[in-house]
Amino acid sequence: MPSTASIPGYTYGNAEVAESPFRLDDLAILKQTLLFTEADVQYLRMAGTVLEPQVEAILDVWYGFVAAHPHLVAYFSTTQGAVLPDYLARVRARFAQWIRDTTQREYDQTWLNYQMEIGLRHHTEKKNHTDAAAGAPTIIPLRYMVGFIVPITLTIKEFLKAGGHSSAEVEQMYAAWFKAVVLHVTLWLQPYAQPGEF
Amino acid sequence: MPSTASIPGYTYGNAEVAESPFRLDDLAILKQTLLFTEADVQYLRMAGTVLEPQVEAILDVWYGFVAAHPHLVAYFSTTQGAVLPDYLARVRARFAQWIRDTTQREYDQTWLNYQMEIGLRHHTEKKNHTDAAAGAPTIIPLRYMVGFIVPITLTIKEFLKAGGHSSAEVEQMYAAWFKAVVLHVTLWLQPYAQPGEF
Repeated sequence: MPSTASIPGYTYGNAEVAESPFRLDDLAILKQTLLFTEADVQYLRMAGTVLEPQVEAILDVWYGFVAAHPHLVAYFSTTQGAVLPDYLARVRARFAQWIRDTTQREYDQTWLNYQMEIGLRHHTEKKNHTDAAAGAPTIIPLRYMVGFIVPITLTIKEFLKAGGHSSAEVEQMYAAWFKAVVLHVTLWLQPYAQPGEF
Repeated sequence: MPSTASIPGYTYGNAEVAESPFRLDDLAILKQTLLFTEADVQYLRMAGTVLEPQVEAILDVWYGFVAAHPHLVAYFSTTQGAVLPDYLARVRARFAQWIRDTTQREYDQTWLNYQMEIGLRHHTEKKNHTDAAAGAPTIIPLRYMVGFIVPITLTIKEFLKAGGHSSAEVEQMYAAWFKAVVLHVTLWLQPYAQPGEF
């Protein structure tokens, strides 16, 4: 993995990231619910190799999707409607790294801690703080957190096909990606849950 | 659609189901986020025809999955660990109807109202009430509500293939089903959200 030191606000593994109350034994049971196995880890590694040279092109698709929908651009804009380009650019750099982390990282306690941190940055506790995005809405509503599972999953298939793998391998990489996206979004919802309901 | 009068606790369209605060204009925007279009409605109708004769076989797969995982069976058991067979059977009949509703119903305000009702029946407000399942846990945790998107999506593909449609049509039906599952789960999370955060 290339150095991540230049990515604004990326604090993966830093001491300032709090320990998540969600532990590895919780994760093991959640993975079962998601049909997520060791084979999926291997297909994510394969996907990582395929996606690495396409990361910016993927981000172009995802950012294009957000840009085409005023109700989504609104979360990167002031409540008066002025788009915040610095905020968009800083998040984009972390979103690119998220593709790398999702396909290359070990899903250990450090990773779990950072998923909680990402959740907090979408929720009232920390949204806008990392990027000094004053004036933007202070939360991404839960409905869009979950809804985003669809575009982030469906749009990846064309990129997975570009690696020259067999269609069976593309399907396996795609299923692993789908499971990984649902796993991430689930963990990001921790700050949205009421006490004892996560 | 066959008569639903014999399905225990199935109150779709009944006056006792409360109006959902989630309205059709909210739904229109959420559908955009999910890439859900009129074409998906047509592919869901096609899927409905394919799945109709296989509904019990699908339920066998889903219930087999739950039965194989103690952490999931627990939600159909007393907190002392005794499985509640009546509760399982009553939910199964409604889950079968959910497949029919998902593929055949108009997604209108009546449908939105019933999605809120389903959400409440997974949450502390109403879980166990409909089926007099005294002693069972009083909530399905949010993590499993979202996590279930994966098995309910992935397992349907083999059933969609059984209808004799082209592989392109199977893919379209499968994508429409995926979007519909995410849409339903999103709406079911309404009672889990804190005020103003849905």
